[in-house]
Amino acid sequence: MQPKHPADSLTILTDLVLPSETNPLNNLFGGELLARMDRAASIAARRHSRRITVTASVNHVAFNRSIPLGSVVTIEAKISRSFKSSMEIFLDVWIEDRESGTKTKANEAIYTFVAVDETGRPVEVPPVIPETELEQERFDAALRRKQLSLVLAGKMKPAEATELRALFI
Amino acid sequence: MQPKHPADSLTILTDLVLPSETNPLNNLFGGELLARMDRAASIAARRHSRRITVTASVNHVAFNRSIPLGSVVTIEAKISRSFKSSMEIFLDVWIEDRESGTKTKANEAIYTFVAVDETGRPVEVPPVIPETELEQERFDAALRRKQLSLVLAGKMKPAEATELRALFI
Amino acid sequence: MQPKHPADSLTILTDLVLPSETNPLNNLFGGELLARMDRAASIAARRHSRRITVTASVNHVAFNRSIPLGSVVTIEAKISRSFKSSMEIFLDVWIEDRESGTKTKANEAIYTFVAVDETGRPVEVPPVIPETELEQERFDAALRRKQLSLVLAGKMKPAEATELRALFI
Amino acid sequence: MQPKHPADSLTILTDLVLPSETNPLNNLFGGELLARMDRAASIAARRHSRRITVTASVNHVAFNRSIPLGSVVTIEAKISRSFKSSMEIFLDVWIEDRESGTKTKANEAIYTFVAVDETGRPVEVPPVIPETELEQERFDAALRRKQLSLVLAGKMKPAEATELRALFI
Amino acid sequence: MQPKHPADSLTILTDLVLPSETNPLNNLFGGELLARMDRAASIAARRHSRRITVTASVNHVAFNRSIPLGSVVTIEAKISRSFKSSMEIFLDVWIEDRESGTKTKANEAIYTFVAVDETGRPVEVPPVIPETELEQERFDAALRRKQLSLVLAGKMKPAEATELRALFI
Amino acid sequence: MQPKHPADSLTILTDLVLPSETNPLNNLFGGELLARMDRAASIAARRHSRRITVTASVNHVAFNRSIPLGSVVTIEAKISRSFKSSMEIFLDVWIEDRESGTKTKANEAIYTFVAVDETGRPVEVPPVIPETELEQERFDAALRRKQLSLVLAGKMKPAEATELRALFI
Repeated sequence: MQPKHPADSLTILTDLVLPSETNPLNNLFGGELLARMDRAASIAARRHSRRITVTASVNHVAFNRSIPLGSVVTIEAKISRSFKSSMEIFLDVWIEDRESGTKTKANEAIYTFVAVDETGRPVEVPPVIPETELEQERFDAALRRKQLSLVLAGKMKPAEATELRALFI
Repeated sequence: MQPKHPADSLTILTDLVLPSETNPLNNLFGGELLARMDRAASIAARRHSRRITVTASVNHVAFNRSIPLGSVVTIEAKISRSFKSSMEIFLDVWIEDRESGTKTKANEAIYTFVAVDETGRPVEVPPVIPETELEQERFDAALRRKQLSLVLAGKMKPAEATELRALFI
Repeated sequence: MQPKHPADSLTILTDLVLPSETNPLNNLFGGELLARMDRAASIAARRHSRRITVTASVNHVAFNRSIPLGSVVTIEAKISRSFKSSMEIFLDVWIEDRESGTKTKANEAIYTFVAVDETGRPVEVPPVIPETELEQERFDAALRRKQLSLVLAGKMKPAEATELRALFI
Repeated sequence: MQPKHPADSLTILTDLVLPSETNPLNNLFGGELLARMDRAASIAARRHSRRITVTASVNHVAFNRSIPLGSVVTIEAKISRSFKSSMEIFLDVWIEDRESGTKTKANEAIYTFVAVDETGRPVEVPPVIPETELEQERFDAALRRKQLSLVLAGKMKPAEATELRALFI
Repeated sequence: MQPKHPADSLTILTDLVLPSETNPLNNLFGGELLARMDRAASIAARRHSRRITVTASVNHVAFNRSIPLGSVVTIEAKISRSFKSSMEIFLDVWIEDRESGTKTKANEAIYTFVAVDETGRPVEVPPVIPETELEQERFDAALRRKQLSLVLAGKMKPAEATELRALFI
Repeated sequence: MQPKHPADSLTILTDLVLPSETNPLNNLFGGELLARMDRAASIAARRHSRRITVTASVNHVAFNRSIPLGSVVTIEAKISRSFKSSMEIFLDVWIEDRESGTKTKANEAIYTFVAVDETGRPVEVPPVIPETELEQERFDAALRRKQLSLVLAGKMKPAEATELRALFI
């Protein structure tokens, strides 16, 4: 299968924070951001695989900065690494100051999707070839995250998670 | 005021068509597309003006192609021309074939926004300098549309709408 | 085909402005109003044609007055003119003062719909016979708007747009 | 206080049934209809009282006919009777056949609203003078419903509910 | 058919009041609460009958206390009595003080559902055996409400509504 | 500070899957489930801390089973462990067969919330005392997850993550 670059799946979702999407502190509601990221990530996974894709897991989402009502929020999603039929999608969330136009990083998230055929059976997806330094870094870390996920699910023995183990020894 | 290029306000809103956004024919509901375009256009107007912006009018929206449930829809909005405090925003709407990745133009729309201060009074915005051939074409046509809008509103005599008149004589 | 009067398609949609439908200035969000008008207009088009109807274009919407949170908004939609399978729907939007009950015109909009059969092919609709002076005025102007739309789309030569041309010469 | 007619508060909310508002049987979801009726009734109460109004109770709603996806639904709300600061609003819900245009009664509902001032304290509202036979009938029945509601809430002794009692003896 | 206890159908729906669900006084919108109660009641009816269930009527809903933005709202729904294919569902709505954790009763409501087969025809449901004193009280009152509903609909003569009549004589 | 049991924060959110909440395969949309879980978890965090709580991170969500349209979904959230001002909330998601009533585990998720005062500054929360075997297991694992999160964020050296390290050596 022809490998692809992360840039090939880049998906940009720029949108406002409207009053109906805020929590009682007048910031973007966590659940609404999770839903928007899920939509952006599923499009990136689809662009990489050209297949139907379904959310397999949300691996880590850190809400570092609250996002106030009226903000312009940009979600950028692209694939970081693929494993047979699964794809790790890395998301960067930015907010933008209205007056200066400066963009600030608000959140990061990692979602995993699986490509399936019309009957719901997993199908293989193209490998990923990272291009930038950051893409390479995320590509490498993806393997450790994959091993971690297998270890936590009891599907891999810690001793076999060589990449992950190396971190701790 | 420092002029700006259309590219400076480019806003990309890529999103899915979910079941809750369809009409009885299972295509994206017209009203939902109008709302999404309004959000994208208001961000482009904000990026051009760095001000609060409010919708002044929707000048023309042609629904050439229906957009089926499950589609990936990309809205690209950028400023085409500004007039003192008002900004014409041109939107292109694309859908993308899942299997081939081919993008097809689905719709075009023109919205006008006004920049205002905190009290709601109009404020001046930067002029626009088009860069590409298409941007130049849309910049030129914007003046005719502006004149047409004034004529139709009875705020300009047809004889004074020189750009527009030239079309018909 | 039996002609019909604009009054036959009159559609009234009275509703509140709830917090979930406002922009950061606490007024009805432009996109939400566009969506409500689309629903009202599609019902008027359906009442005129007794067919499935789909949005063809939004010809002009002027947001003259902002509509504050908590307002009672009344949208009145009726057909202004038909052309074979297409219908121009004219919408008037009113807000109503809670204490005095006085109604104020907030917006006007023009949408075009096409009547289709179950397979999506355009079908003919009844002609329109205006009754009031305002209906007659809108009926006449609809032809100029139709020609304008064809000229702008490059489907009619300006010289052939006789009604429209008359405005400028 | 100047009495008013039921026609003075007539509120019409015509809208479509979109896919996002249906239950698994593809009919309008009960909860969505309840919410729409609440909005229409609160506008009718506001038109009668020219005050802020809050829902006090939903007295009876019978779902006689299911309302399929794609239907045009018309809710007509008007006041049936007032008691000091409370107002009984009677709602009729119609669906309309697309091809014939025939309207069929789908549901009926009775909501009670209270008029309040800015601090939330109940304020008096105008009395109601029914005009049509149906309005008179609903006006009379409203008193029995009021008594019934007081009896069920333990705020009136059954023996004092003279209107209601007359039904059973 | 094997009788069941009210506890067997107990359904708990705990949720927040978000800004998109409030009225202009910043309290939970009546229509939104009606919709949530309808969903909870339909699940309780389904748990009792193990069938498809559709809303038949909303018998009484009293909005005693407004529910402010940001509240935690708990809806508890369970069957109070069944009649052949219909089920009366009693709902209690609680709000909870954030600091003390104290729960306060905010509303009560009674909905009626009917169990149907795949073609929409009513099917029989299990009888109810109340266990607690409150359940017994509601079970008894359900018969009077049933008779009242039949009398008001003109399907039962007042003289035959023995349970109800006893109240007034 | 007085310790609390996981049962003290138990939050149950039972709801339906309506058409507006599904993906193109007619299953509950991932983003919608993430949003519902966020609401349930934030209530559990509030019940434990009696404070305002904000989402800090989503640590892991595995979508093991798709949840079809029309399902009854029960989300059960309770605290698993607290660390100064942060709380780990463990969520179990169940679906229930309509005919048999059998409940099946569909998903599991872990969210972290922080308790804050009115100005947004973190405040201390009560410690957790697990009662059941499963609660104890989750309590123990929470520490490893906490360390893992710190290691991945570069805020703890792998060598100091003693609990976590023990897994790999």
